[in-house]
Amino acid sequence: MRFPANVTSSPLSRSLRVFQVYGANTDVGKTIVSTLLCKALRRRSQTDGVWYLKPVSTGAQQDADDLHITRFVKGVETKCFWQFKEPISPHLAAPQTPDHSDGSLLSKVREHISAINRLGTVLLETAGGVHSPAPSGTSQADLYRPLRLPIILVADSNLGGISTSISAFESLHTRGYDVEQVVVFANEKYKNDGYLLPYFSRYGIPLTVLPPPPPKSGPSDEAAMSEYYESTAEKLGATIESLENRHAARIANVRSMSGRAFSKIWYPFTQHEEISANSIQAIDSAHDDFFQTYTPSHDTSSSQMLKPKFDGSASWWTQGLGHSNPDLTLAAAHAAGRYGHVMFPGSIHAPALELAELLLDKIGNGRLSRVFYSDNGSTGAEVALKMALRASRLRYGWSPNEKVDIIGLKGAYHGDTIGVMDCADPGAFNKEVEWYSGRGFWFDFPKVGMKDGAWKINMPQEMGGSEIKFDNLASIFDVEKREGGVVGEQYANYIRGELKRAIKDEGKKFGAVMIEPLILGSGGMLFADPLFQRTLVNVVRNTPGLFPEFSEDVSSPDSWSGVPIVFDEVFTGLHRLGRVSSASFLGVDADVSIHAKLLTGGLLPLCTTLASESIFKQFLHKDKTMALLHGHSYTAHAVGCSVAKKSVETILELDQAGEWKAAKADWASQEGVEMDVWSQWRQSFVSEVSHLPQVEGTFALGTVLAVTLRDDKTTGYTSTAAGGLLADLKSNGVDARTLGNVVYVMTSLTSKQETVRALEDIIMESLRAM
Amino acid sequence: MRFPANVTSSPLSRSLRVFQVYGANTDVGKTIVSTLLCKALRRRSQTDGVWYLKPVSTGAQQDADDLHITRFVKGVETKCFWQFKEPISPHLAAPQTPDHSDGSLLSKVREHISAINRLGTVLLETAGGVHSPAPSGTSQADLYRPLRLPIILVADSNLGGISTSISAFESLHTRGYDVEQVVVFANEKYKNDGYLLPYFSRYGIPLTVLPPPPPKSGPSDEAAMSEYYESTAEKLGATIESLENRHAARIANVRSMSGRAFSKIWYPFTQHEEISANSIQAIDSAHDDFFQTYTPSHDTSSSQMLKPKFDGSASWWTQGLGHSNPDLTLAAAHAAGRYGHVMFPGSIHAPALELAELLLDKIGNGRLSRVFYSDNGSTGAEVALKMALRASRLRYGWSPNEKVDIIGLKGAYHGDTIGVMDCADPGAFNKEVEWYSGRGFWFDFPKVGMKDGAWKINMPQEMGGSEIKFDNLASIFDVEKREGGVVGEQYANYIRGELKRAIKDEGKKFGAVMIEPLILGSGGMLFADPLFQRTLVNVVRNTPGLFPEFSEDVSSPDSWSGVPIVFDEVFTGLHRLGRVSSASFLGVDADVSIHAKLLTGGLLPLCTTLASESIFKQFLHKDKTMALLHGHSYTAHAVGCSVAKKSVETILELDQAGEWKAAKADWASQEGVEMDVWSQWRQSFVSEVSHLPQVEGTFALGTVLAVTLRDDKTTGYTSTAAGGLLADLKSNGVDARTLGNVVYVMTSLTSKQETVRALEDIIMESLRAM
Repeated sequence: MRFPANVTSSPLSRSLRVFQVYGANTDVGKTIVSTLLCKALRRRSQTDGVWYLKPVSTGAQQDADDLHITRFVKGVETKCFWQFKEPISPHLAAPQTPDHSDGSLLSKVREHISAINRLGTVLLETAGGVHSPAPSGTSQADLYRPLRLPIILVADSNLGGISTSISAFESLHTRGYDVEQVVVFANEKYKNDGYLLPYFSRYGIPLTVLPPPPPKSGPSDEAAMSEYYESTAEKLGATIESLENRHAARIANVRSMSGRAFSKIWYPFTQHEEISANSIQAIDSAHDDFFQTYTPSHDTSSSQMLKPKFDGSASWWTQGLGHSNPDLTLAAAHAAGRYGHVMFPGSIHAPALELAELLLDKIGNGRLSRVFYSDNGSTGAEVALKMALRASRLRYGWSPNEKVDIIGLKGAYHGDTIGVMDCADPGAFNKEVEWYSGRGFWFDFPKVGMKDGAWKINMPQEMGGSEIKFDNLASIFDVEKREGGVVGEQYANYIRGELKRAIKDEGKKFGAVMIEPLILGSGGMLFADPLFQRTLVNVVRNTPGLFPEFSEDVSSPDSWSGVPIVFDEVFTGLHRLGRVSSASFLGVDADVSIHAKLLTGGLLPLCTTLASESIFKQFLHKDKTMALLHGHSYTAHAVGCSVAKKSVETILELDQAGEWKAAKADWASQEGVEMDVWSQWRQSFVSEVSHLPQVEGTFALGTVLAVTLRDDKTTGYTSTAAGGLLADLKSNGVDARTLGNVVYVMTSLTSKQETVRALEDIIMESLRAM
Repeated sequence: MRFPANVTSSPLSRSLRVFQVYGANTDVGKTIVSTLLCKALRRRSQTDGVWYLKPVSTGAQQDADDLHITRFVKGVETKCFWQFKEPISPHLAAPQTPDHSDGSLLSKVREHISAINRLGTVLLETAGGVHSPAPSGTSQADLYRPLRLPIILVADSNLGGISTSISAFESLHTRGYDVEQVVVFANEKYKNDGYLLPYFSRYGIPLTVLPPPPPKSGPSDEAAMSEYYESTAEKLGATIESLENRHAARIANVRSMSGRAFSKIWYPFTQHEEISANSIQAIDSAHDDFFQTYTPSHDTSSSQMLKPKFDGSASWWTQGLGHSNPDLTLAAAHAAGRYGHVMFPGSIHAPALELAELLLDKIGNGRLSRVFYSDNGSTGAEVALKMALRASRLRYGWSPNEKVDIIGLKGAYHGDTIGVMDCADPGAFNKEVEWYSGRGFWFDFPKVGMKDGAWKINMPQEMGGSEIKFDNLASIFDVEKREGGVVGEQYANYIRGELKRAIKDEGKKFGAVMIEPLILGSGGMLFADPLFQRTLVNVVRNTPGLFPEFSEDVSSPDSWSGVPIVFDEVFTGLHRLGRVSSASFLGVDADVSIHAKLLTGGLLPLCTTLASESIFKQFLHKDKTMALLHGHSYTAHAVGCSVAKKSVETILELDQAGEWKAAKADWASQEGVEMDVWSQWRQSFVSEVSHLPQVEGTFALGTVLAVTLRDDKTTGYTSTAAGGLLADLKSNGVDARTLGNVVYVMTSLTSKQETVRALEDIIMESLRAM
């Protein structure tokens, strides 16, 4: 099974030029322009082919656009898939059967184009205007977007045509299309060409002015039209040449990008010794779950240059609602058009306020009452750290430069800025970083995974190193029941003992607990036993005498106890793991909670650090310098807040609409347990993976699949066990990432079931081939 | 002198509702809809006024839209400013004289609206479609944007009208307008209403379907039309009610925002004890240099609720090309529509590549060859720090956890993340921050400023505390000449001596020089003598024996010498101070250079850290962990890179087009010196300010004006001397910020001269009133 071609292809070929003809409105002369272009193409070369494709047409057969072309131009192969009799919009004209879905139409277009194996040019003419509906009702500009064909826009030469032409262009431009040519008929009275020429030239788009066609006056039209076509096509040589040049320039550019990047870009988290100019993939565009890529080392000189690749790392865990999602684009553009970015301190604007209210309302943690904005997970974690340390310091009466540590888990990671790097235990990510010095106490912890079809918890050596089997994943999450059992007690005793030793015997001071609930992402997709994390929080909050005595009343629901609890939900939150907040798996509420990545649906950076009123109040003081003196220039930028609001609303709607019903049903078959624990990956697939000898362990939760490969030499970040697997996945159209010997693939929240099934097949095949 | 009203007003009144009627195309029935609405409004209330305004109209007088209204509806006051005879686009129909400029038109509209001092509704009908040109040629959607009136969109009921209606809506939406109501005529054949109703309901916009008007058939039309209007207006009660409700809801929302923000938002750099629910200003929108604000404590219950305010802090130093700049909006939307955000390591996309190439080409520093992306100035400075420390460590053979400091200036600031906070000397910004520990050696330094009309350099106490006068600002910048003089030698000796003592006597190790060239922004707009900074760099680079010996050939132009030199140009770069790079004022090239804020023109966060190949090569290693392990999820997000590319190109074009010619001419009158040192603020104004007894010193450079107020009690960040001044400026429409006793106001790069002149007058008045 492979990905369905109709959702993944963007034609780009050295030999075959394909252009899509859009009109600024209906009846602006698209077919006349197509006819002229076909004629001019035929004039230009006797050998190159010319193809005209009108996928959907409405109106009487004898007036059909493809017949019009055939009538006036020799040697053009024409095609229309669906001709509907009524001269009305296709979404009204199309009969119920056969299948007129978007997928069906895209498949036909793609097959038609890829079947052409010759030099030449294809013109694909749309119906009506840019947003005129396809038979399915989808706007054509959205429907054809996966192809992202270069566009010839026929502007409107009538009164009002300046406006319709510019708006049509803006609709195409905001959907990421490249308009390569504008064509307009001269009109002595309205002179739209005179206005549109400088307008489009600002975008580097040439505009061709054509003489107006003869008026329609009856059957005698044909001779007049024929003469018009003859005389006008002659003048289109420069237009055809420009189209050819732009096509050639695009190909040259795509081919050159990797080399240019290799010499100019300093890549993040990349050992440049390990990459080459030929290994960098140029991403020409992206749509839904797929990139369109060109990698020099994989250039097979086949006619199709761009290879679709599933975005298996969700573009570093950010993606969730599909690339190039028009709703997010428009949310961004509206905020940009209303505000740009506006000064935040002392002010408020609707997107920041409404996002704050939405998050506080929906994140499901009643303690949280304040929203602090910053730019990314790392800065948001620095903010959380400053909040927590201040609260502890003031309660316990320490001086600002007292040596205070945090409590965390081994393998934690909260970002790349040095302050929060210090919250991670020493490891591969920081051992060579000059100003790093770990400031914490980190517990090793029991980890969850599946091997040979069984869910297990593996205890760390410090806790005996044993293994506990479970019937299913859901029962691991039954933390309230498990809490009262032997393991729960063992966890509590262990944590209490360790903390007592650190505090009482070693004299350490702690200012915060800082953990990623459930899954420690960067640490290697480490799946923590939720009971252990829950117990850690409860021990810190509820052990008399563990922390110094204090007077504040901690019985109120938003008061913190022990030390402030910080949950880093940057990766784990917003349904990445199947729930709006992964804290809910633990059944405890944090005092401070950090949210980013999926927050903006995979479009641009923004972070929110949410805090309880109890923490907030610690910063109220007559002295200005006691305020939280943190704030980036673009704090709470309107574009990011607006996109985040739309994203969070969409995510909540997906859940309410039962978008993941089938996946949840698959996981609901875990016997005897009713719990919202599920994955987009099928149970049976995860089990199958876990049986492979190459696999040390695996798990799936929400959108995430993680597979730990056996590596007898080394484990962790420096392992290279996954190298071959990654390359194999890549050649099969899956762009995945590893963390050492852990390979992970994650879907977006909107990935289609057939896409995930295809992914499962590809992954299984690649794993078996290892 | 006050700001010209036509650029600053956005009408919003409790009593007067103003709606703007746009059409999806010309001839879609805007005037018929306006007539119906006027009639329905008259039916709804006998006492409320109804006004109809058609600012620009084309076509024969007897067919004019305002006359049409008068003919069919009683009791409506109509107005047309400009009626042009030819039924063609206003930009072709308007005669050369009188003045048909945008400013003139906006003034007339505003005056007309503000002269109405009664309860009621104004309908302002546009001409043609949304992007149809005004007499000046400006698109109406852009022209009327400063008013940002709520919109009634008349959709297109003809064939193709679904597309034109949606595209028209998108053009309005991306310009930040709120469409409050869509109206469309029923059409049995095309049924556009059936498609558009659910489409607009996704945006929460109601759609009203009207029966089609009778066909035009001659002079007997009038009776048919009259009957149509009578019978149809009856049905519009719900539409009118909806418009009224939305107007009331908008007002209620604007009034509630400050209070809601006060209880939910945790503001950056804000002591919440100092603010109240009534002091927070709600920013309803922003355009060019102006916010539209509502502050509860300033609500005078006057009819006009929104007060325009000049964005005097350039929204924390980010703004440069005008708020809501449509070019930047479209650049953002295009990238969002083409990519969303795509994975960066291992990949390349056009916006990131093209921005990198543009910066390396144009920033004017031949050393720099690599671009590293991050999200804001603070993260970009962390990246720069990691780069520099690694290079030094490897050259000098230190271990990763060796105690290494940086060399800087007192009052430096590079961001709020803890790693770069450590690069700042102890002060108000960090004294209460828990994990802060300064890691550097910071020079006090000579500062530039004007007092009593004379430019002076004040030496720090360590260097004798004397004062040097200069004839003009430009001669201070003649650093090559000054370098050979007494002061140059004094600087070199002093710096060499201090560094020798630190290194040789105290055993300090240094890993980088890190400075903000010319102006230390957050430190209080400290204007450093460029010669001092130049000398610091040269001493570090060229003093034999100061740093350990090393073998690399440092004679090649991109090799670093001594320690890497890092310039933080986050605030100072990209023409903020009048040049594309402020390093050019010093005449030395950095090894690492950080750029943000203006980089994206004031729209959204992005940072680039540029480095020389010599620094980059230090990270090439077989060991993966020796790579620069830094990278945020949204690294090099396509939207940011695309906006930055457009911004930088626009900034460079402004310079080339001589945009600042007049300002440069004003400063060119500095006798005897030819140097690119200038400001948008006039020399005479700066001089006048410097003579005020309330003023300790002042300067202007590029877009920045800084005024240090006398404060006999305290200086620096904790001073409150500026409190009254700020409030006074605010009440006069200038939203400025202070850094302790330093008040600064900065313009954008596109601020109009009359705006800056008005600003000067307001500032002078407020200063005198202190």
